[in-house]
Amino acid sequence: MSIYCFANNQIQLIEKAGVPVTDLLVQRGYGIFDFLRVAGDTPLFMEDHLDRFFHSAEKMRLTIPQTREDIKTIVKELIQKNQLAYSGIRMIIAGGDAPDGYTIEHPHLIIIQAPLAEPTLHLPETGIKLATYAYQRQIPDVKTTDYLMAVWLQPWMKEQGADDILYYYNDIVSECPRSNFFLVTKDHTLVTAQQNMLNGITRKNIIQVCEAHSIPFEIRDIQLNELKEAKEAFITSSTKRIIPVHQIDEILLRPNYEDSIARKIYDLLKMME
Amino acid sequence: MSIYCFANNQIQLIEKAGVPVTDLLVQRGYGIFDFLRVAGDTPLFMEDHLDRFFHSAEKMRLTIPQTREDIKTIVKELIQKNQLAYSGIRMIIAGGDAPDGYTIEHPHLIIIQAPLAEPTLHLPETGIKLATYAYQRQIPDVKTTDYLMAVWLQPWMKEQGADDILYYYNDIVSECPRSNFFLVTKDHTLVTAQQNMLNGITRKNIIQVCEAHSIPFEIRDIQLNELKEAKEAFITSSTKRIIPVHQIDEILLRPNYEDSIARKIYDLLKMME
Repeated sequence: MSIYCFANNQIQLIEKAGVPVTDLLVQRGYGIFDFLRVAGDTPLFMEDHLDRFFHSAEKMRLTIPQTREDIKTIVKELIQKNQLAYSGIRMIIAGGDAPDGYTIEHPHLIIIQAPLAEPTLHLPETGIKLATYAYQRQIPDVKTTDYLMAVWLQPWMKEQGADDILYYYNDIVSECPRSNFFLVTKDHTLVTAQQNMLNGITRKNIIQVCEAHSIPFEIRDIQLNELKEAKEAFITSSTKRIIPVHQIDEILLRPNYEDSIARKIYDLLKMME
Repeated sequence: MSIYCFANNQIQLIEKAGVPVTDLLVQRGYGIFDFLRVAGDTPLFMEDHLDRFFHSAEKMRLTIPQTREDIKTIVKELIQKNQLAYSGIRMIIAGGDAPDGYTIEHPHLIIIQAPLAEPTLHLPETGIKLATYAYQRQIPDVKTTDYLMAVWLQPWMKEQGADDILYYYNDIVSECPRSNFFLVTKDHTLVTAQQNMLNGITRKNIIQVCEAHSIPFEIRDIQLNELKEAKEAFITSSTKRIIPVHQIDEILLRPNYEDSIARKIYDLLKMME
Protein backbone atom coordinates (compact mmCIF):
# COMPACT_ATOMS: atom_id res chain seq x y z
CA MET A 1 0.00 0.00 0.00
CA SER A 2 1.42 3.37 -1.01
CA ILE A 3 0.95 6.13 1.54
CA TYR A 4 1.52 9.72 0.65
CA CYS A 5 2.62 12.51 2.94
CA PHE A 6 3.40 16.20 2.59
CA ALA A 7 7.08 17.11 3.00
CA ASN A 8 9.63 19.34 1.27
CA ASN A 9 6.68 21.40 0.04
CA GLN A 10 5.08 18.61 -1.98
CA ILE A 11 2.88 15.57 -1.69
CA GLN A 12 5.10 12.54 -2.06
CA LEU A 13 5.42 8.88 -1.10
CA ILE A 14 6.18 8.62 2.62
CA GLU A 15 9.18 6.34 2.11
CA LYS A 16 10.79 9.00 -0.10
CA ALA A 17 10.21 11.85 2.37
CA GLY A 18 13.10 12.80 4.61
CA VAL A 19 14.03 15.61 6.96
CA PRO A 20 17.45 17.08 6.04
CA VAL A 21 20.19 15.93 8.42
CA THR A 22 21.06 19.61 8.93
CA ASP A 23 17.51 20.49 10.09
CA LEU A 24 17.01 21.95 13.59
CA LEU A 25 14.46 19.17 14.17
CA VAL A 26 17.19 16.56 13.63
CA GLN A 27 20.14 18.33 15.24
CA ARG A 28 18.43 20.24 18.08
CA GLY A 29 15.09 18.50 18.56
CA TYR A 30 13.33 21.74 17.69
CA GLY A 31 9.82 21.19 16.43
CA ILE A 32 6.12 21.14 17.27
CA PHE A 33 3.26 19.02 16.03
CA ASP A 34 -0.38 18.19 16.38
CA PHE A 35 -2.25 14.95 15.87
CA LEU A 36 -5.87 14.44 14.95
CA ARG A 37 -8.15 11.58 14.18
CA VAL A 38 -9.80 11.15 10.77
CA ALA A 39 -13.09 9.24 10.51
CA GLY A 40 -13.38 8.13 6.89
CA ASP A 41 -12.60 11.38 5.10
CA THR A 42 -13.52 13.73 7.96
CA PRO A 43 -10.74 15.20 10.11
CA LEU A 44 -12.26 15.53 13.59
CA PHE A 45 -12.10 18.85 15.49
CA MET A 46 -9.83 20.25 12.78
CA GLU A 47 -10.30 23.87 13.85
CA ASP A 48 -9.38 23.08 17.46
CA HIS A 49 -6.26 21.22 16.36
CA LEU A 50 -5.29 24.05 14.02
CA ASP A 51 -5.79 26.55 16.86
CA ARG A 52 -3.42 24.59 19.06
CA PHE A 53 -0.96 23.96 16.19
CA PHE A 54 -0.72 27.68 15.45
CA HIS A 55 -0.44 28.46 19.19
CA SER A 56 2.42 25.95 19.56
CA ALA A 57 4.18 27.36 16.50
CA GLU A 58 3.81 30.96 17.62
CA LYS A 59 5.08 30.30 21.12
CA MET A 60 8.09 28.43 19.71
CA ARG A 61 8.70 31.22 17.17
CA LEU A 62 8.15 28.87 14.24
CA THR A 63 6.47 30.77 11.45
CA ILE A 64 4.24 28.37 9.52
CA PRO A 65 4.74 29.05 5.80
CA GLN A 66 1.18 27.89 5.02
CA THR A 67 -2.15 29.44 6.00
CA ARG A 68 -4.85 27.52 7.85
CA GLU A 69 -6.68 27.15 4.54
CA ASP A 70 -3.54 25.83 2.81
CA ILE A 71 -3.16 23.22 5.54
CA LYS A 72 -6.80 22.17 5.31
CA THR A 73 -6.41 21.79 1.54
CA ILE A 74 -3.29 19.64 1.92
CA VAL A 75 -4.98 17.46 4.57
CA LYS A 76 -7.99 17.00 2.27
CA GLU A 77 -5.73 16.06 -0.64
CA LEU A 78 -3.85 13.50 1.46
CA ILE A 79 -7.09 11.96 2.72
CA GLN A 80 -8.39 11.68 -0.84
CA LYS A 81 -5.14 10.20 -2.10
CA ASN A 82 -4.53 7.71 0.71
CA GLN A 83 -8.07 6.33 1.05
CA LEU A 84 -7.63 4.98 4.57
CA ALA A 85 -10.75 3.74 6.33
CA TYR A 86 -9.72 5.18 9.69
CA SER A 87 -6.57 7.19 10.28
CA GLY A 88 -4.57 9.79 12.14
CA ILE A 89 -3.03 12.96 10.73
CA ARG A 90 0.24 14.26 12.19
CA MET A 91 1.14 17.85 11.28
CA ILE A 92 4.74 18.82 12.19
CA ILE A 93 6.59 22.11 11.97
CA ALA A 94 10.32 21.39 11.80
CA GLY A 95 12.80 24.08 12.85
CA GLY A 96 14.41 23.86 9.42
CA ASP A 97 17.92 24.52 8.20
CA ALA A 98 19.99 26.89 10.33
CA PRO A 99 23.44 27.79 9.01
CA ASP A 100 24.61 28.46 12.59
CA GLY A 101 22.89 25.33 13.89
CA TYR A 102 20.81 27.44 16.26
CA THR A 103 18.81 30.25 14.65
CA ILE A 104 15.35 29.54 13.30
CA GLU A 105 15.26 30.67 9.67
CA HIS A 106 13.30 28.24 7.54
CA PRO A 107 10.62 26.35 9.48
CA HIS A 108 8.67 23.94 7.31
CA LEU A 109 5.54 21.83 7.36
CA ILE A 110 5.33 18.04 7.27
CA ILE A 111 1.99 16.20 7.24
CA ILE A 112 1.79 12.45 7.68
CA GLN A 113 -1.27 10.23 7.56
CA ALA A 114 -1.27 6.72 9.01
CA PRO A 115 -3.91 4.05 9.69
CA LEU A 116 -5.42 4.14 13.17
CA ALA A 117 -7.71 1.79 15.09
CA GLU A 118 -11.24 3.13 15.48
CA PRO A 119 -12.23 3.85 19.09
CA THR A 120 -14.62 1.34 20.60
CA LEU A 121 -18.39 1.93 20.43
CA HIS A 122 -18.62 2.39 24.20
CA LEU A 123 -16.06 3.03 26.91
CA PRO A 124 -13.62 0.09 27.07
CA GLU A 125 -14.44 -2.10 30.10
CA THR A 126 -10.83 -3.04 30.65
CA GLY A 127 -8.93 -0.26 32.31
CA ILE A 128 -5.22 0.38 32.35
CA LYS A 129 -2.58 0.76 35.06
CA LEU A 130 -0.62 3.99 35.42
CA ALA A 131 2.77 4.36 37.10
CA THR A 132 3.48 7.81 38.56
CA TYR A 133 6.78 9.51 37.77
CA ALA A 134 8.18 12.85 38.98
CA TYR A 135 8.73 14.92 35.85
CA GLN A 136 7.63 18.20 34.37
CA ARG A 137 7.59 18.57 30.57
CA GLN A 138 9.39 21.69 29.35
CA ILE A 139 7.11 24.37 27.83
CA PRO A 140 4.11 22.19 28.73
CA ASP A 141 1.37 24.18 26.97
CA VAL A 142 3.12 23.54 23.66
CA LYS A 143 2.90 20.24 21.81
CA THR A 144 6.62 19.97 21.12
CA THR A 145 8.23 16.89 19.62
CA ASP A 146 10.09 16.33 22.90
CA TYR A 147 9.12 12.86 24.15
CA LEU A 148 12.62 12.00 25.32
CA MET A 149 11.49 11.10 28.84
CA ALA A 150 8.35 9.27 27.73
CA VAL A 151 10.20 7.02 25.28
CA TRP A 152 13.09 6.55 27.70
CA LEU A 153 10.73 5.44 30.48
CA GLN A 154 9.03 2.72 28.45
CA PRO A 155 11.14 -0.19 29.83
CA TRP A 156 10.77 1.18 33.40
CA MET A 157 7.01 1.46 32.89
CA LYS A 158 6.81 -2.15 31.72
CA GLU A 159 8.82 -3.26 34.76
CA GLN A 160 6.09 -1.67 36.90
CA GLY A 161 3.51 -3.69 34.97
CA ALA A 162 1.99 -0.37 33.88
CA ASP A 163 0.42 0.64 30.58
CA ASP A 164 1.15 4.35 30.78
CA ILE A 165 2.93 6.95 32.89
CA LEU A 166 1.36 9.67 35.03
CA TYR A 167 3.62 12.69 35.54
CA TYR A 168 3.62 14.71 38.75
CA TYR A 169 5.96 17.37 40.03
CA ASN A 170 6.21 18.94 43.47
CA ASP A 171 3.38 16.55 44.48
CA ILE A 172 1.01 17.92 41.84
CA VAL A 173 -0.32 15.60 39.14
CA SER A 174 -0.20 17.03 35.61
CA GLU A 175 -0.77 14.63 32.72
CA CYS A 176 0.31 11.47 30.94
CA PRO A 177 2.88 11.77 28.12
CA ARG A 178 0.17 11.65 25.42
CA SER A 179 -3.06 12.12 27.38
CA ASN A 180 -4.77 14.33 29.91
CA PHE A 181 -5.73 12.89 33.28
CA PHE A 182 -9.08 13.12 35.08
CA LEU A 183 -10.28 11.81 38.38
CA VAL A 184 -13.68 11.63 40.04
CA THR A 185 -13.77 12.51 43.73
CA LYS A 186 -15.80 10.71 46.38
CA ASP A 187 -18.51 13.38 46.02
CA HIS A 188 -18.79 12.69 42.25
CA THR A 189 -16.93 15.76 41.05
CA LEU A 190 -14.78 15.41 37.95
CA VAL A 191 -11.36 17.03 38.37
CA THR A 192 -8.57 17.76 35.88
CA ALA A 193 -5.30 19.69 36.12
CA GLN A 194 -5.28 23.42 35.52
CA GLN A 195 -1.62 24.04 34.68
CA ASN A 196 1.71 22.58 33.55
CA MET A 197 0.03 20.27 31.03
CA LEU A 198 -1.08 20.27 27.42
CA ASN A 199 -4.53 21.63 26.66
CA GLY A 200 -6.00 18.52 25.10
CA ILE A 201 -8.82 18.84 22.58
CA THR A 202 -10.68 15.90 24.17
CA ARG A 203 -10.17 17.56 27.58
CA LYS A 204 -11.73 20.71 26.17
CA ASN A 205 -14.65 18.73 24.73
CA ILE A 206 -15.20 16.99 28.07
CA ILE A 207 -15.39 20.32 29.87
CA GLN A 208 -17.96 21.43 27.30
CA VAL A 209 -19.97 18.22 27.78
CA CYS A 210 -19.87 18.68 31.57
CA GLU A 211 -21.18 22.23 31.25
CA ALA A 212 -23.94 21.22 28.84
CA HIS A 213 -25.09 18.27 30.95
CA SER A 214 -24.57 19.73 34.44
CA ILE A 215 -21.88 17.24 35.41
CA PRO A 216 -19.99 18.82 38.33
CA PHE A 217 -16.33 19.48 37.49
CA GLU A 218 -13.33 21.39 38.78
CA ILE A 219 -10.24 22.59 36.96
CA ARG A 220 -7.52 22.85 39.61
CA ASP A 221 -4.27 21.36 40.86
CA ILE A 222 -4.57 17.68 41.75
CA GLN A 223 -2.48 16.67 44.75
CA LEU A 224 -0.66 13.36 44.50
CA ASN A 225 -2.34 12.14 47.71
CA GLU A 226 -5.79 12.69 46.21
CA LEU A 227 -5.22 9.71 43.94
CA LYS A 228 -5.88 7.20 46.71
CA GLU A 229 -9.25 8.82 47.47
CA ALA A 230 -10.41 8.79 43.84
CA LYS A 231 -13.66 7.07 42.93
CA GLU A 232 -12.76 6.89 39.25
CA ALA A 233 -9.89 7.96 37.04
CA PHE A 234 -9.40 8.05 33.31
CA ILE A 235 -7.12 9.46 30.64
CA THR A 236 -8.22 11.21 27.47
CA SER A 237 -6.75 11.74 24.02
CA SER A 238 -7.82 12.53 20.50
CA THR A 239 -6.95 8.98 19.48
CA LYS A 240 -8.87 7.03 22.11
CA ARG A 241 -11.39 9.50 23.56
CA ILE A 242 -11.35 8.00 27.10
CA ILE A 243 -9.51 5.08 28.62
CA PRO A 244 -10.51 4.11 32.18
CA VAL A 245 -7.75 3.72 34.75
CA HIS A 246 -8.10 0.73 37.09
CA GLN A 247 -4.84 1.10 38.97
CA ILE A 248 -2.33 3.86 39.78
CA ASP A 249 0.87 2.47 41.33
CA GLU A 250 -0.54 0.34 44.16
CA ILE A 251 -3.91 2.07 44.31
CA LEU A 252 -6.75 -0.05 42.95
CA LEU A 253 -9.74 1.67 41.38
CA ARG A 254 -12.67 -0.51 40.52
CA PRO A 255 -15.58 1.73 39.61
CA ASN A 256 -18.93 0.31 38.61
CA TYR A 257 -18.57 0.26 34.84
CA GLU A 258 -22.28 0.83 34.06
CA ASP A 259 -22.59 3.71 36.51
CA SER A 260 -19.30 5.40 35.78
CA ILE A 261 -19.02 9.06 34.88
CA ALA A 262 -16.40 8.01 32.32
CA ARG A 263 -18.96 5.92 30.49
CA LYS A 264 -21.54 8.68 30.47
CA ILE A 265 -19.03 11.21 29.14
CA TYR A 266 -17.71 8.75 26.55
CA ASP A 267 -21.16 8.40 24.99
CA LEU A 268 -21.65 12.17 24.98
CA LEU A 269 -18.21 12.74 23.44
CA LYS A 270 -18.90 10.26 20.68
CA MET A 271 -21.99 12.26 19.73
CA MET A 272 -19.85 15.38 19.24
CA GLU A 273 -17.83 13.80 16.41
CA MET B 1 31.51 22.43 -2.85
CA SER B 2 30.13 18.95 -2.37
CA ILE B 3 30.08 17.70 1.18
CA TYR B 4 29.53 14.06 1.97
CA CYS B 5 27.95 12.60 5.08
CA PHE B 6 27.08 9.14 6.35
CA ALA B 7 23.36 8.39 6.55
CA ASN B 8 21.03 5.51 5.65
CA ASN B 9 24.05 3.23 6.00
CA GLN B 10 26.07 4.82 3.19
CA ILE B 11 28.32 7.74 2.40
CA GLN B 12 26.32 10.19 0.32
CA LEU B 13 25.98 13.85 -0.57
CA ILE B 14 24.66 15.76 2.44
CA GLU B 15 21.87 17.44 0.47
CA LYS B 16 20.52 14.01 -0.49
CA ALA B 17 20.58 12.64 3.06
CA GLY B 18 17.34 12.72 5.00
CA VAL B 19 15.95 11.27 8.19
CA PRO B 20 12.67 9.41 7.51
CA VAL B 21 9.62 11.41 8.63
CA THR B 22 8.54 8.35 10.62
CA ASP B 23 11.83 8.25 12.62
CA LEU B 24 11.69 8.58 16.42
CA LEU B 25 14.22 11.41 16.05
CA VAL B 26 11.71 13.37 13.95
CA GLN B 27 8.48 12.42 15.70
CA ARG B 28 9.64 12.10 19.33
CA GLY B 29 12.93 14.02 19.48
CA TYR B 30 14.67 10.81 20.49
CA GLY B 31 18.37 10.82 19.70
CA ILE B 32 21.88 11.40 21.01
CA PHE B 33 24.99 12.84 19.41
CA ASP B 34 28.55 13.89 19.92
CA PHE B 35 30.60 16.59 18.27
CA LEU B 36 34.34 16.77 17.83
CA ARG B 37 36.84 19.04 16.19
CA VAL B 38 39.00 17.92 13.29
CA ALA B 39 42.37 19.63 12.68
CA GLY B 40 43.28 18.94 9.07
CA ASP B 41 42.68 15.20 8.89
CA THR B 42 43.04 14.48 12.62
CA PRO B 43 39.88 14.05 14.72
CA LEU B 44 40.82 15.42 18.16
CA PHE B 45 40.22 13.37 21.30
CA MET B 46 38.36 10.78 19.23
CA GLU B 47 38.51 8.08 21.91
CA ASP B 48 37.05 10.40 24.55
CA HIS B 49 34.23 11.42 22.22
CA LEU B 50 33.54 7.79 21.33
CA ASP B 51 33.48 6.90 25.04
CA ARG B 52 30.86 9.57 25.68
CA PHE B 53 28.93 8.71 22.50
CA PHE B 54 28.67 5.06 23.52
CA HIS B 55 27.76 6.07 27.09
CA SER B 56 24.97 8.36 25.81
CA ALA B 57 23.67 5.64 23.50
CA GLU B 58 23.72 2.96 26.20
CA LYS B 59 21.92 5.12 28.76
CA MET B 60 19.25 6.02 26.17
CA ARG B 61 18.92 2.35 25.15
CA LEU B 62 20.03 3.10 21.61
CA THR B 63 22.08 0.19 20.30
CA ILE B 64 24.68 1.50 17.87
CA PRO B 65 24.75 -0.82 14.85
CA GLN B 66 28.44 -0.02 14.21
CA THR B 67 31.51 -0.83 16.32
CA ARG B 68 33.94 1.86 17.47
CA GLU B 69 36.31 0.72 14.70
CA ASP B 70 33.53 0.99 12.09
CA ILE B 71 32.82 4.55 13.21
CA LYS B 72 36.49 5.52 13.10
CA THR B 73 36.73 4.09 9.58
CA ILE B 74 33.67 6.05 8.40
CA VAL B 75 35.01 9.27 9.99
CA LYS B 76 38.35 8.74 8.26
CA GLU B 77 36.62 8.13 4.93
CA LEU B 78 34.54 11.31 5.27
CA ILE B 79 37.60 13.38 6.19
CA GLN B 80 39.47 12.04 3.14
CA LYS B 81 36.51 12.64 0.84
CA ASN B 82 35.55 16.13 2.06
CA GLN B 83 39.06 17.63 2.27
CA LEU B 84 38.10 20.44 4.67
CA ALA B 85 40.96 22.47 6.15
CA TYR B 86 39.33 22.70 9.57
CA SER B 87 36.05 21.07 10.51
CA GLY B 88 33.68 19.54 13.01
CA ILE B 89 32.27 16.03 12.99
CA ARG B 90 28.76 15.40 14.33
CA MET B 91 27.86 11.78 15.06
CA ILE B 92 24.15 11.19 15.72
CA ILE B 93 22.22 8.10 16.77
CA ALA B 94 18.60 8.53 15.69
CA GLY B 95 15.88 6.54 17.43
CA GLY B 96 14.83 5.06 14.09
CA ASP B 97 11.54 3.79 12.75
CA ALA B 98 9.07 2.60 15.35
CA PRO B 99 5.85 1.04 14.09
CA ASP B 100 4.09 2.05 17.34
CA GLY B 101 5.72 5.48 17.31
CA TYR B 102 7.29 4.78 20.69
CA THR B 103 9.41 1.64 20.90
CA ILE B 104 13.09 1.77 19.93
CA GLU B 105 13.69 -0.89 17.30
CA HIS B 106 16.06 0.37 14.62
CA PRO B 107 18.47 3.04 15.90
CA HIS B 108 20.85 4.23 13.19
CA LEU B 109 24.02 6.25 12.76
CA ILE B 110 24.38 9.58 10.98
CA ILE B 111 27.76 11.33 10.64
CA ILE B 112 28.02 14.87 9.32
CA GLN B 113 31.17 16.90 8.68
CA ALA B 114 31.07 20.69 8.34
CA PRO B 115 33.66 23.48 8.11
CA LEU B 116 34.57 25.08 11.44
CA ALA B 117 36.61 28.12 12.39
CA GLU B 118 39.99 27.26 13.93
CA PRO B 119 40.33 28.31 17.57
CA THR B 120 42.56 31.35 18.11
CA LEU B 121 46.29 30.89 18.85
CA HIS B 122 45.88 32.22 22.39
CA LEU B 123 42.88 32.81 24.63
CA PRO B 124 40.56 35.40 23.03
CA GLU B 125 40.98 38.76 24.80
CA THR B 126 37.38 39.72 24.27
CA GLY B 127 35.12 37.94 26.69
CA ILE B 128 31.42 37.23 26.44
CA LYS B 129 28.38 38.04 28.54
CA LEU B 130 26.26 35.25 30.05
CA ALA B 131 22.64 35.55 31.12
CA THR B 132 21.57 33.15 33.89
CA TYR B 133 18.38 31.15 33.45
CA ALA B 134 16.67 28.70 35.83
CA TYR B 135 16.57 25.40 33.96
CA GLN B 136 17.75 21.84 34.34
CA ARG B 137 18.38 19.75 31.21
CA GLN B 138 16.69 16.38 31.29
CA ILE B 139 19.06 13.38 31.57
CA PRO B 140 21.97 15.86 31.82
CA ASP B 141 24.88 13.39 31.65
CA VAL B 142 23.71 12.36 28.18
CA LYS B 143 24.36 14.44 25.07
CA THR B 144 20.81 14.20 23.76
CA THR B 145 19.60 16.18 20.76
CA ASP B 146 17.24 18.12 23.08
CA TYR B 147 18.15 21.81 22.72
CA LEU B 148 14.54 22.97 22.80
CA MET B 149 15.11 25.44 25.63
CA ALA B 150 18.47 26.68 24.31
CA VAL B 151 17.12 27.48 20.85
CA TRP B 152 13.90 28.88 22.28
CA LEU B 153 15.81 31.24 24.58
CA GLN B 154 17.92 32.80 21.81
CA PRO B 155 15.73 35.94 21.36
CA TRP B 156 15.47 36.37 25.16
CA MET B 157 19.26 36.04 25.43
CA LYS B 158 19.78 38.72 22.79
CA GLU B 159 17.34 41.00 24.62
CA GLN B 160 19.63 40.69 27.64
CA GLY B 161 22.57 41.70 25.44
CA ALA B 162 24.10 38.32 26.26
CA ASP B 163 26.13 35.94 24.10
CA ASP B 164 25.26 32.73 25.87
CA ILE B 165 23.06 31.32 28.63
CA LEU B 166 24.17 29.95 32.00
CA TYR B 167 21.73 27.43 33.48
CA TYR B 168 21.12 27.12 37.20
CA TYR B 169 18.50 25.26 39.19
CA ASN B 170 17.65 25.42 42.87
CA ASP B 171 20.36 28.13 43.10
CA ILE B 172 23.08 25.79 41.82
CA VAL B 173 24.90 26.66 38.59
CA SER B 174 25.30 23.76 36.15
CA GLU B 175 26.43 24.58 32.60
CA CYS B 176 25.77 26.52 29.42
CA PRO B 177 23.69 24.86 26.69
CA ARG B 178 26.79 23.83 24.72
CA SER B 179 29.66 24.45 27.17
CA ASN B 180 30.85 23.73 30.67
CA PHE B 181 31.31 26.59 33.08
CA PHE B 182 34.30 27.35 35.31
CA LEU B 183 35.01 30.10 37.78
CA VAL B 184 38.10 31.15 39.68
CA THR B 185 37.56 32.06 43.31
CA LYS B 186 39.22 34.97 45.14
CA ASP B 187 41.83 32.53 46.48
CA HIS B 188 42.75 31.42 42.93
CA THR B 189 40.97 28.08 42.99
CA LEU B 190 39.38 26.89 39.77
CA VAL B 191 35.87 25.49 40.33
CA THR B 192 33.51 23.58 38.06
CA ALA B 193 30.17 21.85 38.63
CA GLN B 194 30.09 18.26 39.83
CA GLN B 195 26.60 17.17 38.80
CA ASN B 196 23.57 17.82 36.61
CA MET B 197 25.68 18.77 33.61
CA LEU B 198 27.37 17.16 30.63
CA ASN B 199 30.84 15.72 31.14
CA GLY B 200 32.68 17.84 28.59
CA ILE B 201 35.84 16.50 26.99
CA THR B 202 37.53 19.91 27.33
CA ARG B 203 36.42 19.99 30.99
CA LYS B 204 38.07 16.61 31.46
CA ASN B 205 41.26 17.82 29.75
CA ILE B 206 41.33 20.94 31.95
CA ILE B 207 41.09 18.82 35.10
CA GLN B 208 43.99 16.75 33.77
CA VAL B 209 46.01 19.90 33.04
CA CYS B 210 45.31 21.23 36.54
CA GLU B 211 46.49 17.99 38.09
CA ALA B 212 49.66 17.89 35.96
CA HIS B 213 50.54 21.54 36.64
CA SER B 214 49.45 21.83 40.27
CA ILE B 215 46.72 24.37 39.54
CA PRO B 216 44.32 24.24 42.51
CA PHE B 217 40.83 23.11 41.50
CA GLU B 218 37.58 21.89 43.03
CA ILE B 219 34.79 19.87 41.49
CA ARG B 220 31.67 20.72 43.48
CA ASP B 221 28.32 22.50 43.38
CA ILE B 222 28.61 26.19 42.50
CA GLN B 223 26.10 28.38 44.33
CA LEU B 224 24.48 31.13 42.30
CA ASN B 225 25.66 33.75 44.80
CA GLU B 226 29.28 32.72 44.29
CA LEU B 227 29.20 34.31 40.84
CA LYS B 228 29.49 37.82 42.22
CA GLU B 229 32.63 36.88 44.16
CA ALA B 230 34.38 35.29 41.17
CA LYS B 231 37.78 36.54 40.10
CA GLU B 232 37.49 34.96 36.65
CA ALA B 233 34.98 32.86 34.75
CA PHE B 234 35.09 31.03 31.47
CA ILE B 235 33.24 28.46 29.43
CA THR B 236 34.76 25.50 27.65
CA SER B 237 33.85 23.38 24.65
CA SER B 238 35.45 21.10 22.09
CA THR B 239 34.89 23.76 19.43
CA LYS B 240 36.44 26.79 21.16
CA ARG B 241 38.59 25.34 23.95
CA ILE B 242 38.03 28.30 26.34
CA ILE B 243 36.08 31.53 26.03
CA PRO B 244 36.53 34.06 28.85
CA VAL B 245 33.40 35.49 30.48
CA HIS B 246 33.47 39.22 31.18
CA GLN B 247 29.94 39.63 32.47
CA ILE B 248 27.25 37.44 34.05
CA ASP B 249 23.90 39.26 34.25
CA GLU B 250 24.91 42.54 35.98
CA ILE B 251 28.14 41.19 37.44
CA LEU B 252 31.24 42.55 35.72
CA LEU B 253 34.38 40.42 35.63
CA ARG B 254 37.48 42.09 34.32
CA PRO B 255 40.43 39.81 35.05
CA ASN B 256 43.93 40.76 34.07
CA TYR B 257 44.20 39.03 30.71
CA GLU B 258 47.96 38.32 30.88
CA ASP B 259 47.76 36.90 34.38
CA SER B 260 44.55 34.95 34.01
CA ILE B 261 44.29 31.27 34.85
CA ALA B 262 42.16 30.92 31.71
CA ARG B 263 45.08 32.03 29.55
CA LYS B 264 47.53 29.69 31.22
CA ILE B 265 45.17 26.71 30.83
CA TYR B 266 44.37 27.65 27.22
CA ASP B 267 48.01 27.36 26.24
CA LEU B 268 48.37 24.04 28.05
CA LEU B 269 45.19 22.69 26.43
CA LYS B 270 46.43 23.64 22.99
CA MET B 271 49.54 21.55 23.56
CA MET B 272 47.38 18.47 24.27
CA GLU B 273 45.92 18.48 20.76
